[in-house]
Amino acid sequence: AQIVVLPGDGIGPEVAAAGVAVLRQIAERFGHQFTFSEHAIGGDAIDRFGDPLPPSTREALLAADAILLGAVGGPKWSDPNAKVRPEQGLLAMRKLLGVFANVRPLKLHPRTAALSPLKPERTQGVDLVFIRELTGGIYFGAKTRSDTDATDECRYSVEEIERVVRHAFELARTRKKKVTSVDKANVLETSRLWRSVATRVGAEYPDVALEHQLVDSMAMHLLTRPADYDVIVTENMFGDILTDEASVLAGSLGLSPSASVGGPGAGVYEPIHGSAPDIAGQQLANPLGTILSAAMLLRHSLGLTDEAAVVEAAVDHVLEQGNLTRDLGGTATTQAVTRAVLDACH
Amino acid sequence: AQIVVLPGDGIGPEVAAAGVAVLRQIAERFGHQFTFSEHAIGGDAIDRFGDPLPPSTREALLAADAILLGAVGGPKWSDPNAKVRPEQGLLAMRKLLGVFANVRPLKLHPRTAALSPLKPERTQGVDLVFIRELTGGIYFGAKTRSDTDATDECRYSVEEIERVVRHAFELARTRKKKVTSVDKANVLETSRLWRSVATRVGAEYPDVALEHQLVDSMAMHLLTRPADYDVIVTENMFGDILTDEASVLAGSLGLSPSASVGGPGAGVYEPIHGSAPDIAGQQLANPLGTILSAAMLLRHSLGLTDEAAVVEAAVDHVLEQGNLTRDLGGTATTQAVTRAVLDACH
Ligand SMILES: CC(C)[C@H](C(=O)O)[C@@H](O)C(=O)O
Ligand SMILES: CC(C)[C@H](C(=O)O)[C@@H](O)C(=O)O
Repeated sequence: AQIVVLPGDGIGPEVAAAGVAVLRQIAERFGHQFTFSEHAIGGDAIDRFGDPLPPSTREALLAADAILLGAVGGPKWSDPNAKVRPEQGLLAMRKLLGVFANVRPLKLHPRTAALSPLKPERTQGVDLVFIRELTGGIYFGAKTRSDTDATDECRYSVEEIERVVRHAFELARTRKKKVTSVDKANVLETSRLWRSVATRVGAEYPDVALEHQLVDSMAMHLLTRPADYDVIVTENMFGDILTDEASVLAGSLGLSPSASVGGPGAGVYEPIHGSAPDIAGQQLANPLGTILSAAMLLRHSLGLTDEAAVVEAAVDHVLEQGNLTRDLGGTATTQAVTRAVLDACH
Repeated sequence: AQIVVLPGDGIGPEVAAAGVAVLRQIAERFGHQFTFSEHAIGGDAIDRFGDPLPPSTREALLAADAILLGAVGGPKWSDPNAKVRPEQGLLAMRKLLGVFANVRPLKLHPRTAALSPLKPERTQGVDLVFIRELTGGIYFGAKTRSDTDATDECRYSVEEIERVVRHAFELARTRKKKVTSVDKANVLETSRLWRSVATRVGAEYPDVALEHQLVDSMAMHLLTRPADYDVIVTENMFGDILTDEASVLAGSLGLSPSASVGGPGAGVYEPIHGSAPDIAGQQLANPLGTILSAAMLLRHSLGLTDEAAVVEAAVDHVLEQGNLTRDLGGTATTQAVTRAVLDACH
């Protein structure tokens, strides 16, 4: 399999290296042929090519079987009025690959649950998956700017809503058979369309319960009763906010993986944390979010279920051992934790 | 002073009655002349007039010195595709009055802090105020809907941003002199405009520190370090989500007041909780959010600072006494808690 690696900015290269090391080890142990090619994205690509998603990267992405991404962005390129910005590389990649479903599992690990800002009785039993629509909505609508005002258009088609909602129902079938669709149907026309499509698709899945939540209520319920949710599906902007809010429940951003899938080509796998420029290059970053993203890559893009399970078990084992980076209250380096995972993968 | 009372739906009438009782008592004690007139809004107004903000209510709102609102909405009128919906009354009222700044203070009361889903060490010292832009953005932009798609336009003018940001800076001057402006400037054109206006206005307040936060980061920081914030200002949709998220920190929605101000006419004061139709008519609702909203009304619309302080002290006293409604773990009725506040106001 052709795996494209996009190290990106800040701690991106360090954590991407960890993910690659684990994938190499899995290839060796199970006798797979993985080839890795590194390409530029984000600030790094702006510095080297003047373009956050240069043609060479685009070409590689379209030919890939799977994509592993580190992180993108940093203060160096963060002027919102700059002509080119790192995150444009991310958005262009999502559109190019058509990865309309961003999948973020949220589970609490017993070892890290204590780090959650929420009381333990609130987070007990939390095991949910967010499906965030990733290639539509206000992110990609028409934009205008004049001296006196600015506009952003949020647009959704029936087709865009249907495919991502369907993704959520299919996933729910393999889990607790419950979908929560989040919108703002009391105010937005796109949300009323969203709700009607979700309802229609839901009727095709009589075995799965569908509930609708308003985005403001959902922002509360994620904190008051997160264990009540199974699969949560929502549009791009709401998903951006709610998935980040929810990620805090886990106690550390450093552990959480994500997958962006659904396109005709490769899926993109990346940790949910950012580029953390303040700790870049110091081997302080937690590699486990990327390593768990690599596990998702094995399972979802390569169909290697056993291999994915081996990686996930190795991560569990390392956490049990208390081999922890600074964000989890430990002192282990990125390399040491990665080494421990490699050892546990044997 | 002419006070318009909008009881609305669900528990709205019960809590509005509590607010009015406290205002009457204050008028008597301090020798003020308050006249109260009740008008229809929301579902109640749909039932009686076929219009969630009928002309009689509009007229009264425009002539009022201050407005006290209970709550609006309920499952009875909640079909998102219905022609008239209760929340249209709210939105029309905001626009009619031009109340562009929704003010939500968030403070933890020692008595209720234990009910917060957050660990006590996280919420210690939390004392912040949200300023949410309330009459612009995607709420009021052009909307379209066809068989195949839907759109909502988010639009902001320099003027709309400037006045609400200025409101935040003025408030910050009376507090800890820190403004956090929340946007999504890495994606939205309206947010880039927002950020540039906030920066320009901020330069006029050299004594107040200004920081910018992306909305997704803010959703995390509200949970990981809420005590670091003082005044937070943001646009309408982000404010809807973030204020509801933040309100959970307080441990109970029942205690939190809000004010919608900034227009040429009267301000609107209302508890942040909803209409809670499941407990309507049972005297189970917590009246304190409305009573504290009445205190904000006294202070901000009528300039009665001492009177507001008396009400707030009375609420504190009642909480200390442990005179609590069900949402706070007690068994007292709405009327009993209101009575206790009235007694403490003497
Ligand atoms: C960097 C930014 C454009 C991006 C987004 O908003 O989608 C990020 O926050 C994310 O969630 O992946
Ligand atoms: C009812 C709804 C239209 C309203 C809003 O979104 O503004 C409510 O959620 C609020 O925050 O006051």
